[in-house]
Amino acid sequence: AVPAPPSCKSDSSGASNSGESSRESSRCSTPGPDADRADRLREKMRRRIESGDPWFSLEFFPPRTSSGAVNLISRFDRMGFGGPLFIDITWHPAGDPGSDKETSSMMIASTAVNYCGLESILHLTCCNQTKENITAHLSKAKRLGLKNIMALRGDPLGDSWEEEEGGFSYATDLVKHIRCEFDDYFDICVAGYPTGHPEADGYHADLKHLKEKVDAGADFVITQLFFRAETFLSFVKDCRAIGITCPILPGVFPIQGYQSLRQLVKLSKLEVPKEIMEVIEPIKDNDAAIRNYGIQQAVEMCKVLLDSGVVPGLHFFTLNREVATIQVLRQLGLWIEDPRRPLPWAISAHPKRKVEDVRPIFWASRPKSYIYRTQDWDEFPNGRWGNSSSPAFGELNDYYLFYLKSKCSKDALLQMWGEELTSEESVFEVFTNYITAQANLSGHKVMCLPWNDDPLAPETNLLKDELEKVNRRGILTINSQPNINGKPSSDPIVGWGPPGGYVFQKAYLEFFTSSENVTALLKVLRKYEPRVNYHIVNVQGKNLTNAHDMQPNAVTWGIFPGREIIQPTVVDPVSFMYWKDEAFALWIEQWAKLYEEESPSRMIIQYIHDNYYLVNLVDNDFPLDNCLWQVIDDMFDLLDAPPEPLQ
Amino acid sequence: AVPAPPSCKSDSSGASNSGESSRESSRCSTPGPDADRADRLREKMRRRIESGDPWFSLEFFPPRTSSGAVNLISRFDRMGFGGPLFIDITWHPAGDPGSDKETSSMMIASTAVNYCGLESILHLTCCNQTKENITAHLSKAKRLGLKNIMALRGDPLGDSWEEEEGGFSYATDLVKHIRCEFDDYFDICVAGYPTGHPEADGYHADLKHLKEKVDAGADFVITQLFFRAETFLSFVKDCRAIGITCPILPGVFPIQGYQSLRQLVKLSKLEVPKEIMEVIEPIKDNDAAIRNYGIQQAVEMCKVLLDSGVVPGLHFFTLNREVATIQVLRQLGLWIEDPRRPLPWAISAHPKRKVEDVRPIFWASRPKSYIYRTQDWDEFPNGRWGNSSSPAFGELNDYYLFYLKSKCSKDALLQMWGEELTSEESVFEVFTNYITAQANLSGHKVMCLPWNDDPLAPETNLLKDELEKVNRRGILTINSQPNINGKPSSDPIVGWGPPGGYVFQKAYLEFFTSSENVTALLKVLRKYEPRVNYHIVNVQGKNLTNAHDMQPNAVTWGIFPGREIIQPTVVDPVSFMYWKDEAFALWIEQWAKLYEEESPSRMIIQYIHDNYYLVNLVDNDFPLDNCLWQVIDDMFDLLDAPPEPLQ
Repeated sequence: AVPAPPSCKSDSSGASNSGESSRESSRCSTPGPDADRADRLREKMRRRIESGDPWFSLEFFPPRTSSGAVNLISRFDRMGFGGPLFIDITWHPAGDPGSDKETSSMMIASTAVNYCGLESILHLTCCNQTKENITAHLSKAKRLGLKNIMALRGDPLGDSWEEEEGGFSYATDLVKHIRCEFDDYFDICVAGYPTGHPEADGYHADLKHLKEKVDAGADFVITQLFFRAETFLSFVKDCRAIGITCPILPGVFPIQGYQSLRQLVKLSKLEVPKEIMEVIEPIKDNDAAIRNYGIQQAVEMCKVLLDSGVVPGLHFFTLNREVATIQVLRQLGLWIEDPRRPLPWAISAHPKRKVEDVRPIFWASRPKSYIYRTQDWDEFPNGRWGNSSSPAFGELNDYYLFYLKSKCSKDALLQMWGEELTSEESVFEVFTNYITAQANLSGHKVMCLPWNDDPLAPETNLLKDELEKVNRRGILTINSQPNINGKPSSDPIVGWGPPGGYVFQKAYLEFFTSSENVTALLKVLRKYEPRVNYHIVNVQGKNLTNAHDMQPNAVTWGIFPGREIIQPTVVDPVSFMYWKDEAFALWIEQWAKLYEEESPSRMIIQYIHDNYYLVNLVDNDFPLDNCLWQVIDDMFDLLDAPPEPLQ
Repeated sequence: AVPAPPSCKSDSSGASNSGESSRESSRCSTPGPDADRADRLREKMRRRIESGDPWFSLEFFPPRTSSGAVNLISRFDRMGFGGPLFIDITWHPAGDPGSDKETSSMMIASTAVNYCGLESILHLTCCNQTKENITAHLSKAKRLGLKNIMALRGDPLGDSWEEEEGGFSYATDLVKHIRCEFDDYFDICVAGYPTGHPEADGYHADLKHLKEKVDAGADFVITQLFFRAETFLSFVKDCRAIGITCPILPGVFPIQGYQSLRQLVKLSKLEVPKEIMEVIEPIKDNDAAIRNYGIQQAVEMCKVLLDSGVVPGLHFFTLNREVATIQVLRQLGLWIEDPRRPLPWAISAHPKRKVEDVRPIFWASRPKSYIYRTQDWDEFPNGRWGNSSSPAFGELNDYYLFYLKSKCSKDALLQMWGEELTSEESVFEVFTNYITAQANLSGHKVMCLPWNDDPLAPETNLLKDELEKVNRRGILTINSQPNINGKPSSDPIVGWGPPGGYVFQKAYLEFFTSSENVTALLKVLRKYEPRVNYHIVNVQGKNLTNAHDMQPNAVTWGIFPGREIIQPTVVDPVSFMYWKDEAFALWIEQWAKLYEEESPSRMIIQYIHDNYYLVNLVDNDFPLDNCLWQVIDDMFDLLDAPPEPLQ
């Protein structure tokens, strides 16, 4: 008889030491039956506690303005690299927090999860809310892929507050409601008050409330801020004494300024210890001095907390600022300077995208757009598009969405891309200046292009000289990668994936160019069959290719100990036709529209949009030197050659 | 709006020049919507005709005895390498041709398709058959994965023959019946008679019958044998003149002996041309001379046929012999001497296995057993076993099945493996002699082992010296592969897959060894973490591993132009537990049972079966030198070392 598969094993898949968050290296081509459970925040905490690997987390509040939202999202991207286990977004009842507005708590948390790939906790307050309202918020959060809730009572509207019949009087009620309505779906966090809740009947009554919240189903506790390590440590001791066994995370507040400290203290009804006030008062007009002191004070307190052995992770109230928190984390050695990438692209934290392990290369610089256009997919194709069961890409008419917006203002864009364009060549110059990162004639560095919102990636920088050369001559590159023949997965520039592996790439080049160039290019490409695969398409969809019309070409792959091959990036012929629409539309939406209608500048961009081709080239022979530059050279040689004499 | 994917393309997936049959390089990770249709025999013919690439095919008759069946199957394996487009199996109404007997036409054709990976045509005769019978045969053929039928009338039982009311009078009726009952499922072949059917009312009446058969739905024609090229060529001309447009394939009969020629001529009522009889009669007692003449005559005739431009492929009546046909094909340049392997293992020709592109490495030397044990699977996992939706492996108690049987007789096995075993060491010697291909003490070469029915593969031969060394000391290897870091896919020894690619391997070693060795090995392996993954298991299923219990380890993969990565071979922890049962059982079923019960020889094998462990090792660091030999050396060093003194 055939026995059941073995149950005995020693797991060597190993939780990595580096930052988890959803950037965690959980890539596994064979999700086990309980992959869902293992991926929960409380399970991640459990694993980190077991391996004695302290983490940090970051708290943000929702922005007030639309441009604030754009800024906050890029802050998420930057701070995500440092490796927070999670972030959390506060809930402001007065700010329509559950709405679809780009400044709502709900939308910010959703963006953090879906577009920034960050494990996130959404705060939720229940006071003065109907059960229906709360359930609607929770349902929406679940629908958006949020998996964690910080259950709070919140402040009552008006001055006084009374228990409501059948409503929510305490956070405990909210915890019970979540467990009752959503079973075990959410991980639930509750607030702890190391010095007692200001409205509770004393410290011990408050401890009892905390016990009730945990007993009702909370998974862990984050505390209100405090100023002395011993405050927190004796609080934890008291919690343990009455049987609270879940993780209790200290809320850390690096003092960043005199005013913000006073405001916070007023809101939270805390008292600042004398020894801190004595230092701060004399320097209250010197922001830098206060910030430096705040960093130093936080670092010292955190060291005591970590040394105590009872603090598994530190929670930072960032006030939506970066510098102080990052400084503290750097000094504690918790900030990850050189994050390992589990895949060449950042993984979304939406639960249904957990198994996603391949994307078309085209959106490499526009991952949020790719996520947006595939958000309605129920399954993520395993490197295979174009079969009838795959859903289509969503349309992209929503360039206004804050998480897809350029970080730059219209004025900044005009300075970079030219207040006035005089010819196609002035467009070539913009591209060239972007590649070289040099200032243009009006003294502005070109920091982005419609297809690349960030400066050149370190990897692309390897190709800088060649890219500059071809852009100058009208090969307007928007995406490229060098060939890589088995570099260690730990390589700081091109590495990704688990340790001990090897990564590979085929050289890739994608550019817009004129139809004259394409005519010459097609002649030249005949010499490079079958080494080079190409797709050449214009805005009308005229498509020239030597590739199979359904078969993706893997251009990035990795080999790892004890694993199947991972091939996260492909040139996929089917999705290229969707990308082509987006790539051409960006000329108009992001660039031409900066100028007046009928203006010469706008007409130049429109001309390029209407007449240029989008070309992608893959050099299949990855162990040899990249031949794509030779292809372009040959094309220019052909164009430069005198016309052939008649025989 | 998003346009439909492009319809314009130039297909560069390219039908290969080399032998098609089901060994064709149709590996494609993205089967198009009409992959089914493109894979049909008639489509393969169409592509070969279009590219002017002539093919050959081979006709066999079912064997009379069980050992004849075993021999025929290994002939299929050998002749399959030469690259026939298809083979066909004749139908002998007297021999219970549709039964499950191992000698039936049905079972032989099924084995050719399923276990030898050969595109096959099953003959079927209808005369004296009920419609129900015929439908039952066809349904069974379809169920077994057969896709092509040669529709024949067959010879009536007894001397005279009358049309039957409502029955089948002509092959045309059978063609119509197949199309009526099975729509377009089968590709249908019919017989053509270049000199007219012996029973037809003359040549032209017979041509009309052929036209009727084609009009009724036949896809192509194979002719009866003939002796002069012009006979066939004028027949084709006449067929075309009356509107028969499908492929017409000449049936070629290399004369192999005087008696067989006379018999065939009698059966087929053909006349042998005078010029041939004049050569043959004088040498009729010299078999070799007749065979040589037959080869020469066939080659010359085939050259005329191919040069005519109207012959797309040649069909050979092999009489179940190899030499003459292969000689003719070699002289014509049609025999593939160095077949390209589309994958490292031979692909089954069963339609539902067409998409199969990964197998566990364990069955590398027992592919027919793997196919047998997975024959009931509806889907083939993409490198993933062990999820709940995967079906289990079938049990293997059917060692008697002719297509799983050793080609060697019991006597031959005893000569190779020892009439009498005296110790475990005499077993070590058998393994060592198999590796070195040297004669044992009684003068017999060990050509097979229970786990390997063939001599060492050329690839394994690369490891010969190391294998010999370790087998001598009781590391009884049954499977291994060297590490390969990017050799061209055309490499004659380790290459596979489409041209222009690169293949890779992780070093693999699998062996039985004693529990003493395993104890030392486990100590040594600690030094090789995480470079080496291991699975160590005994017959009871005690399982020691440092690998993830669900995650396969890819050990063979290839990178090809314009394609996704292909990873055809994995070390899969789940299926290893099924393989382990088979691997241990082979000790008893194939070896121990050669000896009397209670005999010392049998008890030695039984002891090994009961006490040894099955070990597999993977060196994940494929770009470095294979470290597995060092692991084994370290193990022996540890065993040889004096016991450590107490501190």
